[in-house]
Parts: sequence; C-alpha cells; structure tokens
Amino acid sequence: MAKNTARTTPKPSTANGLKTARTTLRRKPDRGAHDFETIAAILDAGLVCHVGFAVDGQPYVVPTAYGRDGETLYIHGSSASRMLKTLAQGVPVCVTVTLFDGLVLARSTFHNSVNYHSVMVLGVAREATGDEKLHGLRTITEHLLPHRWEDSRPPTAQEMKASTVLKLSIEEASAKVRTGPPIEDEEDLSLPHWAGVLPFALVPQTPIPDAHVPEGTDAPAYVARYARPS
Amino acid sequence: MAKNTARTTPKPSTANGLKTARTTLRRKPDRGAHDFETIAAILDAGLVCHVGFAVDGQPYVVPTAYGRDGETLYIHGSSASRMLKTLAQGVPVCVTVTLFDGLVLARSTFHNSVNYHSVMVLGVAREATGDEKLHGLRTITEHLLPHRWEDSRPPTAQEMKASTVLKLSIEEASAKVRTGPPIEDEEDLSLPHWAGVLPFALVPQTPIPDAHVPEGTDAPAYVARYARPS
Repeated sequence: MAKNTARTTPKPSTANGLKTARTTLRRKPDRGAHDFETIAAILDAGLVCHVGFAVDGQPYVVPTAYGRDGETLYIHGSSASRMLKTLAQGVPVCVTVTLFDGLVLARSTFHNSVNYHSVMVLGVAREATGDEKLHGLRTITEHLLPHRWEDSRPPTAQEMKASTVLKLSIEEASAKVRTGPPIEDEEDLSLPHWAGVLPFALVPQTPIPDAHVPEGTDAPAYVARYARPS
Repeated sequence: MAKNTARTTPKPSTANGLKTARTTLRRKPDRGAHDFETIAAILDAGLVCHVGFAVDGQPYVVPTAYGRDGETLYIHGSSASRMLKTLAQGVPVCVTVTLFDGLVLARSTFHNSVNYHSVMVLGVAREATGDEKLHGLRTITEHLLPHRWEDSRPPTAQEMKASTVLKLSIEEASAKVRTGPPIEDEEDLSLPHWAGVLPFALVPQTPIPDAHVPEGTDAPAYVARYARPS
C-alpha cells in the first residue's frame, strides 16, 4: 500500500536508523534493514499485525488491526480486552507485521525458504486520549480502507469510552526481507527437480453487501477497486 | 488446506477440549472455539505462524514456517538463531496462526471489523531429535507444499546439524473466528453508507522458474495447481 509514506518526514537519529542491540539482526544481516522508509512501507502494506506481550511470564501473540501516522503506530480494541488492559499498564510490547510473498522451492529441502517482508517494532505502548484517541481510530480505519472514515458514522461519546487506543512510537524497529529465487549449493543445480518461486498475493474479492443495502446499489469505488499496491 | 486433518485422531480430554484458564476467551466468547478439529483446520490452512517468546522481559514476535502432525506442531530454523536457541531452553511460547479473510464495513466506524480465523497455541517447545527431527522437517515442507519433500534432495547429515527442529504439543489452545456481515445498531441501518464485507484471498500466482531450470520445462502439477481450499 505504502499509502501513508508520502505524509511522513522521517528523521532517523543516526546512520543506523532505528537499530538497537535488541533489533540488530544476528543471522543473515543482509536480509535486514533499519531505515525508516523500508519499515514504514512494510507497515503500510500490511493489514493485520501480531501483538506480543507477556502476562505472568507467558507470552501471548494476538492479531489485530493497526494504522501508522508518521512515527506512531496505533492499535485499538475494546476497553475490556485483556490485551488492551495489559498493554495500557505500560509493559514491553512487540508488534510484528508480516507480508507473505511466496514459497521458495530449492532442489534441496535444506534451501527451501519463504519470500516475505516483515517488521518488528519494540517498545512500550501508551494510551492515546482526547483528540489523539479519535485521530488514532481514524488512522486505523483509513489504513484498512482509505476513504472509509468519511463514509461512515463517527463514534459517539459512549463508543469512544468503550474503545481503548494505544500508541507505540516507531523508534526501535527492524525490517527483514527475503526476495528472489532459491540460493542453492552449486552441486545441486543439475538435479532434476524444478526450482523457483511460487508467488502469493492477497487479493481483494467481490464486495458482498449486507442485507440492508438497497438492491442494485453498487459498492463505492474505494471498496470495489480496492487494490494492494506492491 | 485442511490437508492434515484426516490423518489425526483427536482425543480432547474434556468436553471443553483444549480450553484452560489461559486460553478461555474473556470477551466475545461466541467467537471462540476449543475443539481440536476447528483448531487443526485453521493451523492446516495457514502458511506462516507468529512465534512469541520473551528475552529479558522483552517479548519478540517472529514469523516462521511450521507444520502439524496430529497433536504436534513443528517449527524449525537455523541452530544459530536467537529464537531457536531461546526456545530450545524450554521457555513459555505462544504460536499464533491467523488467516485474514476480509474487511467488515459497518455504517458506523465503531462496528467496523475484520473477518478472520486464528489459533493461539501455548506451551513449552522441546527439541525434536533423531528420526523425529527429520519427520519434523518433512512435516513442515509438506505443510507448505504437499508433494515437495519427495521431489527434492533430502538433507545431508551436515544440513541436519545446522537445523534445529522444535515441537510444541497442541494441548492448550484456542481458536477465534469472525465470519459474516457487520453487526450494526438498529438505528444505523437506515444510514446511507454502503455496508458489507470485502473478502480477501491469498492466491497463488504463476510459478517463476529459477535460472537453472531448462527452458520449456513446466512447473510440476503440485506447484502449478497449488490451491488453497477454504
């Protein structure tokens, strides 16, 4: 999607961007990136993130919607949810976004792999309140489906109360990317097995109106022509 | 995919299946399931899982390939990776698999949602060794692409040494599923906004042979006709 990238003015504080000891890739560092533009583009292209947090020493990984505005990542949920309650206390969190791009098929099982783009953001989430809370909700909605916020009823005061919005600063983060064909041992290249990549794409299908949309009503263009830029 | 489901003989120990205090859904319990069949079908339909673990109190969430055989989940990686080294010590882990099915567009922003199938498996991973290690690798390869294991060079002793395979018993697990149209407040149903679902599908594209496949060679049927059953 990369739809939000243009809005931002990234200012990484060092040549290494958002790299810290905790986000430095120890293996295959050539697959890693710490520059803000790469990280932002992957975050903008994803639809769902996986949020990791621990309760009593047990890690939990929960999928949820998110949105990015500049260097801030927003997630939200019911004020009653365990995840939101836990995170609002200010505990360490990891938010990971993964784009699955394809299967990499090598002639040797050992060199089979997966093509993907992924981002890991570490930090402590804080609750967004007041105007920023509404802004966070809008950012999440517009991330999932640009133009939808204007074409729906805004939240009431009671609905705002029932939602918790958390923000996480994209300060400590890393991207990991694998693209391209399999990398094989020289002596395997003459084996008779087919090798290459089977790409995958997450493709929007035909919109399904609910039972209350008047018959013959077309889905709006921003729904019907939803496209997932690479 | 659900391709492994037939092989299994699930024997949930209680009427609640794989439910524990930690996997009991506190919110929207109608969206939850703890029966083995539901959990297995979602695990079999996913391609990548997200593994959550903590190091020095910081949670990490890492995407990786996996495979299921019966009540055992296998993941693997380089013996040198931080994740594999950490998990092989026997620390609590959470493995989450999420299928993103579509955007749920309500007339009110508050009732916007996402359709998905997800599974969370909690436990402590153990290293698979000997014959089970090879079986784990085969299970992961066959999960990603059925028939591929037989059509590639098996791992050498040295390659086996460079890989770590972990197994996690699917004992404590929950599924969470949302399907269908938006659920709206009665008074919003007459609002002029289009509402419904925009489904998404993860679709295999045309296979791309690598530079060493002889020209004119077709991709094998198990690659070219890869399909993702619902």
